[in-house]
Amino acid sequence: MAEDRPEAGGLRPDEDGLIARYFAPLAGPGADGLRDDAATLTPSPGCDLVLTADAIVAGVHYFPDDPPASIARKALGVNVSDLAAKGASPRGYLLTLALPDDWSEDWLAGFAAGLGAGLAAFGGALLGGDTVRAAGPALIGVTAIGEVPRGAMVRRLGARIGDRLCVSGTIGDAALGLHLRKAPPAAWAEALDASDRAALIDRYWHPRPRIALAPVLRAHARAAMDVSDGLAGDLAKMLKGGPDEQGLSADVDLAALPLSEAAARALAAAPEVLPTIVTGGDDYEILCAVAPERLDALLAEAEAVGVPLTCIGTVTAGQGVSVFRQASGRPLSIGTGSFSHF
Amino acid sequence: MAEDRPEAGGLRPDEDGLIARYFAPLAGPGADGLRDDAATLTPSPGCDLVLTADAIVAGVHYFPDDPPASIARKALGVNVSDLAAKGASPRGYLLTLALPDDWSEDWLAGFAAGLGAGLAAFGGALLGGDTVRAAGPALIGVTAIGEVPRGAMVRRLGARIGDRLCVSGTIGDAALGLHLRKAPPAAWAEALDASDRAALIDRYWHPRPRIALAPVLRAHARAAMDVSDGLAGDLAKMLKGGPDEQGLSADVDLAALPLSEAAARALAAAPEVLPTIVTGGDDYEILCAVAPERLDALLAEAEAVGVPLTCIGTVTAGQGVSVFRQASGRPLSIGTGSFSHF
Repeated sequence: MAEDRPEAGGLRPDEDGLIARYFAPLAGPGADGLRDDAATLTPSPGCDLVLTADAIVAGVHYFPDDPPASIARKALGVNVSDLAAKGASPRGYLLTLALPDDWSEDWLAGFAAGLGAGLAAFGGALLGGDTVRAAGPALIGVTAIGEVPRGAMVRRLGARIGDRLCVSGTIGDAALGLHLRKAPPAAWAEALDASDRAALIDRYWHPRPRIALAPVLRAHARAAMDVSDGLAGDLAKMLKGGPDEQGLSADVDLAALPLSEAAARALAAAPEVLPTIVTGGDDYEILCAVAPERLDALLAEAEAVGVPLTCIGTVTAGQGVSVFRQASGRPLSIGTGSFSHF
Repeated sequence: MAEDRPEAGGLRPDEDGLIARYFAPLAGPGADGLRDDAATLTPSPGCDLVLTADAIVAGVHYFPDDPPASIARKALGVNVSDLAAKGASPRGYLLTLALPDDWSEDWLAGFAAGLGAGLAAFGGALLGGDTVRAAGPALIGVTAIGEVPRGAMVRRLGARIGDRLCVSGTIGDAALGLHLRKAPPAAWAEALDASDRAALIDRYWHPRPRIALAPVLRAHARAAMDVSDGLAGDLAKMLKGGPDEQGLSADVDLAALPLSEAAARALAAAPEVLPTIVTGGDDYEILCAVAPERLDALLAEAEAVGVPLTCIGTVTAGQGVSVFRQASGRPLSIGTGSFSHF
């Protein structure tokens, strides 16, 4: 209890040594090489901060034997995805790393490399954090700090009846990738070639937060969130309790759902994966609601910044589960429709 | 793996229900009742943000059977203590809560009550966070966001030869409290009456971050940090690598060390507790270095804001372990002198 002093002369560095070796090289300005107990950040003039925190846990949000660089990048990416959905640009991160007893230098070196790659890809600087030992699974908690012009954060709630619903990129890849990552993999894996399987697992490992879409969302979206717990469940969250507590539902055209080539081939080979595509997690795409008169501008500006955006349905009056309409016109049964990491 | 959907109709709420019940009532403005994936914070004009993150883990930083309200308040307090040492005022917090399998509603209700009490005592609002299940000990990670006038954050490094060293409050109480909390408690516990024992354990449970001292430190301190890992170890950190990489050490007069009445009685009964007082953790007092010509002003202004501040020694030239001088003039041997929670 509270007296687990690191052994002098041990093979593994103590906390300060570990921070100096692996994390200090990643520290941004204001963090003073992580040699202080806090960092400073000077806000940009006229901006609000946008703050979010998400943790990932071994065995819950990732496989313990996933590549450590991918784990680090995912921990950053899931937070950056939240910032992007709110219209914010990343400024910095604080990292809480709980290491299990069997952590190794190799693992940590890979983790730090992935963290560096994530910082380079997403922008923003490492500002601080804490490293603790925990006699349990590894936990990586990230607090991400972004900025938006004052008052411009895009809210999750606020969609109105008649708004069009759009999603970025393709949906369902990561959920299929998760099933391919399992041992044994899903039976339909055999219908896919190696490159399709790799593409889907890559989506599970490597969220691609839609940072470029942030200013477009600020300009046009009435409501937005990132799709992290499955499209169906997250759509339900977005429609729950609008500004005037109106009852909202949605009519989604499944034929319009953007699928990657790999996911389309999986669906053709095994139609039973459709609910996984619609309710599975880890997409880290953007779901947004836009007034009909703004739809064209939204789509055009998304295209201009290089992010595919697809209109998949419409916000309707009503309460309860949204309708996911199949080509036949019959709604897909998706049960509770929500995925929970908790 | 990643499909632990909460049981519908179960006795315990899912993550959203849990947040709505226990944490949403504590959410500050900008957090929209924790119904969004991020919160906004409008920085005060002319201010920098000060950011810090510290996690506490069951069985490492606290006893699993400590009162849940105390655990929550401690998780906040250890972070606020860092802000105070940097001269910052608390603005907000993000909470990452990893719950073990055996969490209970009673525990969580107590935890939320303590969190609310901490917010009320320390200032700043709950802005968001994440709740995850982890098959290990509970972990409470907090990111605290404070503000200082632009450029005014007080650094850990920067002390100069001849600077006077001061500490706030009393030192060693929490470390003694930890030993009283153990089963069986330390042998010297018998020399203390029940109220002394309770006072020391209270210091272990309830950090009292020195928020009132923040503006005084900004005005007068050359360097400051909070004492969380023991006075000796933290002093060594403060003197490591000054701005011009000069070698720094310190001469500390143990007779000047501020002790509570309870700690003084423990020391009188059991002189062998002195190293525990000097090297034990969890004080959450402020250690600062001040230019000699500023000492009087620092002490007077600390007194004016109601925080006891005591001069305990002087920064000296040299490198290596500081000297903790006993009344006899002989230095106390304190070994490596540093306490690590890692």
